[in-house]
Amino acid sequence: MEENSIIGKAVPRVDAVEKATGKAIYTDDFKLAGMLIGKIKRSPHPHARILRIDTSRAEKLPGVKAVVTGKDTTGRKFGTIKAYKAIWDELPLCMDKVRYIGDEVAAVAAVDEDTALEALDLIDVEYEELPAVFDPLEAMKPGAPVIHEGFQNNISMQVFLEAGDIEQGFKDSYRVFEDRFENVAVAHSPMEPHTSVASYVNGKVTLWSSTQSPFVVRMALAHQLDLPEAQVRVLKMTVGGGFGGKTDLYALDVCCVLLSQKAGRPVKIALTRQEEFETTRTRHSIIVELKTGVTKDGIILAKQARNILDGGAYTGVGLVAPYLSNLFLTLPYKAPNIKLEATRVYTNKVRGGAMRGYGSPQVIFAADSQMDIIAHELGIDPVELRSRNAITTGYQTSNGLRITSSAFPETIEKSAKGIAWAEKHGKMKKENKGMGMGCSGYIVGTGVAGGTPSNYSAGAIIKLHTDGFATLFTGAVDIGQGSDTVLSMIAAEELGIPLSKVKVVAGDTELTPFDLGQISSRTTFQTGNAVKRAAAEAKAKLLKVVAKNFEISPEDLEAKDERIYVKGSPDKVMAFKDAVFACQAANKGLEVVGNGAFAHELEQTIYTTGRGNYSPAYTFSTAAAEVKVDKETGEVEVLKIHYAHDIGKAINPINVKGQVEGSVQMGMGYALFESLLFDKGRLLNPTLSDYKLALTKDMPEIGVTLVESDDPGAPFGAKGCGEGTVAPVAPSIANAIFDAVGVRIKSLPITPEKILNALKEKEKAG
Amino acid sequence: MEENSIIGKAVPRVDAVEKATGKAIYTDDFKLAGMLIGKIKRSPHPHARILRIDTSRAEKLPGVKAVVTGKDTTGRKFGTIKAYKAIWDELPLCMDKVRYIGDEVAAVAAVDEDTALEALDLIDVEYEELPAVFDPLEAMKPGAPVIHEGFQNNISMQVFLEAGDIEQGFKDSYRVFEDRFENVAVAHSPMEPHTSVASYVNGKVTLWSSTQSPFVVRMALAHQLDLPEAQVRVLKMTVGGGFGGKTDLYALDVCCVLLSQKAGRPVKIALTRQEEFETTRTRHSIIVELKTGVTKDGIILAKQARNILDGGAYTGVGLVAPYLSNLFLTLPYKAPNIKLEATRVYTNKVRGGAMRGYGSPQVIFAADSQMDIIAHELGIDPVELRSRNAITTGYQTSNGLRITSSAFPETIEKSAKGIAWAEKHGKMKKENKGMGMGCSGYIVGTGVAGGTPSNYSAGAIIKLHTDGFATLFTGAVDIGQGSDTVLSMIAAEELGIPLSKVKVVAGDTELTPFDLGQISSRTTFQTGNAVKRAAAEAKAKLLKVVAKNFEISPEDLEAKDERIYVKGSPDKVMAFKDAVFACQAANKGLEVVGNGAFAHELEQTIYTTGRGNYSPAYTFSTAAAEVKVDKETGEVEVLKIHYAHDIGKAINPINVKGQVEGSVQMGMGYALFESLLFDKGRLLNPTLSDYKLALTKDMPEIGVTLVESDDPGAPFGAKGCGEGTVAPVAPSIANAIFDAVGVRIKSLPITPEKILNALKEKEKAG
Repeated sequence: MEENSIIGKAVPRVDAVEKATGKAIYTDDFKLAGMLIGKIKRSPHPHARILRIDTSRAEKLPGVKAVVTGKDTTGRKFGTIKAYKAIWDELPLCMDKVRYIGDEVAAVAAVDEDTALEALDLIDVEYEELPAVFDPLEAMKPGAPVIHEGFQNNISMQVFLEAGDIEQGFKDSYRVFEDRFENVAVAHSPMEPHTSVASYVNGKVTLWSSTQSPFVVRMALAHQLDLPEAQVRVLKMTVGGGFGGKTDLYALDVCCVLLSQKAGRPVKIALTRQEEFETTRTRHSIIVELKTGVTKDGIILAKQARNILDGGAYTGVGLVAPYLSNLFLTLPYKAPNIKLEATRVYTNKVRGGAMRGYGSPQVIFAADSQMDIIAHELGIDPVELRSRNAITTGYQTSNGLRITSSAFPETIEKSAKGIAWAEKHGKMKKENKGMGMGCSGYIVGTGVAGGTPSNYSAGAIIKLHTDGFATLFTGAVDIGQGSDTVLSMIAAEELGIPLSKVKVVAGDTELTPFDLGQISSRTTFQTGNAVKRAAAEAKAKLLKVVAKNFEISPEDLEAKDERIYVKGSPDKVMAFKDAVFACQAANKGLEVVGNGAFAHELEQTIYTTGRGNYSPAYTFSTAAAEVKVDKETGEVEVLKIHYAHDIGKAINPINVKGQVEGSVQMGMGYALFESLLFDKGRLLNPTLSDYKLALTKDMPEIGVTLVESDDPGAPFGAKGCGEGTVAPVAPSIANAIFDAVGVRIKSLPITPEKILNALKEKEKAG
Repeated sequence: MEENSIIGKAVPRVDAVEKATGKAIYTDDFKLAGMLIGKIKRSPHPHARILRIDTSRAEKLPGVKAVVTGKDTTGRKFGTIKAYKAIWDELPLCMDKVRYIGDEVAAVAAVDEDTALEALDLIDVEYEELPAVFDPLEAMKPGAPVIHEGFQNNISMQVFLEAGDIEQGFKDSYRVFEDRFENVAVAHSPMEPHTSVASYVNGKVTLWSSTQSPFVVRMALAHQLDLPEAQVRVLKMTVGGGFGGKTDLYALDVCCVLLSQKAGRPVKIALTRQEEFETTRTRHSIIVELKTGVTKDGIILAKQARNILDGGAYTGVGLVAPYLSNLFLTLPYKAPNIKLEATRVYTNKVRGGAMRGYGSPQVIFAADSQMDIIAHELGIDPVELRSRNAITTGYQTSNGLRITSSAFPETIEKSAKGIAWAEKHGKMKKENKGMGMGCSGYIVGTGVAGGTPSNYSAGAIIKLHTDGFATLFTGAVDIGQGSDTVLSMIAAEELGIPLSKVKVVAGDTELTPFDLGQISSRTTFQTGNAVKRAAAEAKAKLLKVVAKNFEISPEDLEAKDERIYVKGSPDKVMAFKDAVFACQAANKGLEVVGNGAFAHELEQTIYTTGRGNYSPAYTFSTAAAEVKVDKETGEVEVLKIHYAHDIGKAINPINVKGQVEGSVQMGMGYALFESLLFDKGRLLNPTLSDYKLALTKDMPEIGVTLVESDDPGAPFGAKGCGEGTVAPVAPSIANAIFDAVGVRIKSLPITPEKILNALKEKEKAG
């Protein structure tokens, strides 16, 4: 393979200056003439029947231009996108009941924020309080309060994944380990809270929104409003972080539209930070009961799990969580016999949804903590145990995942080397220091694309200009992860022009091809493939004309350095922009356009048995941590993390490293600090001062090694790194704590209190 | 030909509701976070040297964020687009001299309008006044003040158009008529004054502007700023009328960008109505000295003209005016021998530019008044004289115009019939009533497309969606004339879907294909052709897949009523949206995209001799007027106008009729009321109360007959009607006045004063 000009070079992001200088336009920066400010009236009760809503006093307040309640909606419920079994259990404005504290009851639009807030106070809602339930285990018990009619034991979703013969697997095992792990709901905490501006004009809706998936939002919003999709335009402005929390339709979007329709003016709703915490989405807390059978040498023969997910009050995109919590237990280790069960349960709290690593940080904390337990019990070095079980290139898992590339063994090796595992592991106990490892596998998008033709999940259109520039139209959304840069680099490399000459139009259902959006780490692989194909098609049109000019075959040409060269004859050359001009001239002015798409080869078995290949490729990650525990206070200091990630190919290494470092920070927060604290359904810490994130001052020295496995189906070999990199961090820290002071904490976050209690227990046990 | 489903039906405009309900977003409705208000400091002198500009006091005023002068510009001059001989004589902010009252000297951006206006007052400019000249004849005299260095006798442009043998033509003539006609500068008076918002971020410029030609503006703005075109994005919002006054780059656009760059914030400049009158563009006043030789039967043998255009202080798009003033004298009558000369002269006034009918209302007033004189002198009925000389289908004019379709004779016949010419002409003198006719020919765009490949002037891209909608991307601009509707109808007809299912993305250099813009009545013909071709290509992709499905040939299929039918087998059918889905599915998800373009077959002789075919087709128009003159007051009452126009094919008849009625109103204003009055270069009537337009109350009964000549090169046969329809109105009224009271007024506007004076003269002459 020839050397790339752009791919693999560390370059600043295309939007870096705009963002750093405050020029980037976020949704909240956007104003339209006559725009009103919308606010939402929310339930103060975790569970109650609505007896009466009186908006008359609010409507009379000067400056109030519209008040809407459930009566103004179509009455349709909404939920997640088409392809999955639909559970549509949410009304944009509650009509019968409220199901958590923060549930939407009414909305107002007024000339300014103060007036809108005053109007909220003037809306009278009469409730009949109902018994509520906050714990999923309690919710499943007979006689528990019924949150949604028709869901027995409050179970919204139960899925199974079986392969091989689990009974035989355990029978053949030398030892079987059974452990129970717990964690808590945590919040995405993006810099930018959810914000939307809606304009309803003559049956047509435009929604400017801080969304990760304009096309998914359009699909749901059009259904909700009973409009054809083409009458609904959803576009993203600059998005200030999403982490999965901005993937689906929100009630605020629907309210925004209804208010605009009623007021006849554009309306903006921007959530406050408190609303962001109380009413958006969380990472599901999952109870993981895990049973693993291994040979004497530690080879996994059987893996059984029972995952219980706290779903909160509604489903939405949370529908996918039980599938994924099973799936991620089939990676990154070989397991010939599996039996996995996941149950998502309604409770009267803010719901769980997609969050970075979706389903994986919870179950990987369990699985990779247990790997450490197994290693300890069998007397095998934890690194060696992982290597023995590691999934490698060409492997097909028992549930049908086809591993087209895996540098997983190398990530184990590199991360171990990065913290000098061989030299130091187990040898620092005197200083209360220890080392631990965590590993995970992840996907680059799913095989499920929302009912599109051929399971089409990404399109790209590239137009070439006679001044040597190219415009890329993509439905993908850069939420801060850098996809505009990566997709531009792919286009630039394929076309042989500099990155500065690619312009991006992104994330607008009116202007750009369909894209499933910024979910499940799919953009570089899936949209990247579409972009590469679109660029290749546009380039082929140029080469055809240039070849005719030089009277040779297009195969003898290459595009590089803004020129089309005859291979081997560097003097035979046409400038790229001249080639565009010539191509247009040869086609009576027709613009030079390349069209590309990415579609899945979907296995229908996924829908029936749950088995089958799920993603077009898989990534693998290993974190190795060194920690120090203060036995007096129980406090953990993470000294160093060395992270090795199988990226396939790093399109922009500096960007990938940034993604990995961000994952380490988020993973550390999950491991040690973050927790949404509820008291009878009321969130106690809905502020950034009370909700503890891992801050810069908490961060250790981080080493990052990018391992390039060069996936054959990927654009330039690149897989992805957005999400899978979060999960290994928590188990690496938990395992390091065990190595340091000998206590095994099986619930997150690992607070000083838990460590002190465990140390006491251990002392007692002697 | 099969009957059309949509073409030819009178339908409401696609943007009617938005506009009627005040929801359409004009540039002035558009706000960005932190946006500043810009204002321009202008010259109070018609001609002066700038000695010193001191902005320091303005800069210190709280709330002022940027002040720019000529020093902040690149120093580059600008003018009209590439293809023509370039005359770049304008600086965005004057550095050496000012050349008219209103010339731009400095600009400020402040937090609000009051502060910006106050800042203007704080800018000190020291001038040395220079002698000024306001009349083009005076300006051409030796010793006249020099307005621009290097232009002898202040002549900016002189062009000639000769064909046949003019001397022989006059020799062979039975009689030769010589007349001199005059007119005055008039103003476009769009409802929406010029407004732009600029945002400069990191070397990239976005300009939201009320422009007719985003691509033309981008070309000039990029050059002006010394940026690659791709770094400059120009897009139009809803445009509230243009009439030619919004076709080129304005100093205000450049100021807006420079202020944004300096302030680091977006800046809006909206001209006041006074600035709109004083500083934009006018219809050139033209002195037309016309000499025509005819046979005894009134057949034109020779036509000679000398046109002197008052150019004002700069050139810009005014460069084209002398060419066009010659060209329009070669239509609508046959003239085997011609010798035409046009001279554009600088004066110290606001400049002349493009205005509806560009060059034609002035010269057609002359030519068709003279036709009336000839008819009268030779004793031939004016209608008969016109018919005898009328250009017909298949004719090639002496200067090389190829007339692919002409229903001109029919327009003469229909308009005459419409006001009962045969019955009433010449028979109402007792009541001081009379009848007159006016005729003109026009173009559907030029053969000159700005240096694009293959003289490409319009592209179109159409995307089909699986919900049965289509999105049309076009660079064309609907400035109120209805092109969004017409282009949508063309796409809908070709695709066989309803108009409501076509969405338009228009006039954005970043998103849409190149289009020369809303100039020279080209959109329906040129962009319409591109749209039809794009739709045909997209449809062909569908038919190919459907044909495979039915195992027949694509030729056996047709698209109609949202279905793809097998011809003759109405049961073999696939829904349009299903065909889109199937087409995508058959191509691994690739979006169904059609790409179309319109390019001219350009004759290079146009650039050298001025001869050659200029436009891909020609339209013809006849107005017949009945007026009553009050001999006491000199006031003219227009009683009736019947208008017949060779539209080729009326895509949307109600829209075409609206265009014609608007032309009659504008033509009446030109004939009777409008006049920009100057005193030593100072405009005396820069308000809508002092500048007299033809109002609704002034309007007569208007009859419109659309004649369809079905041009072979046009989309569905449609030519155009935006501009050519203005010119015949003034001569029809002047000729009717002559018919009524026997006085011939050869200068516009025909004021009561001129009529009274002429009546007095006539009485004297006895």
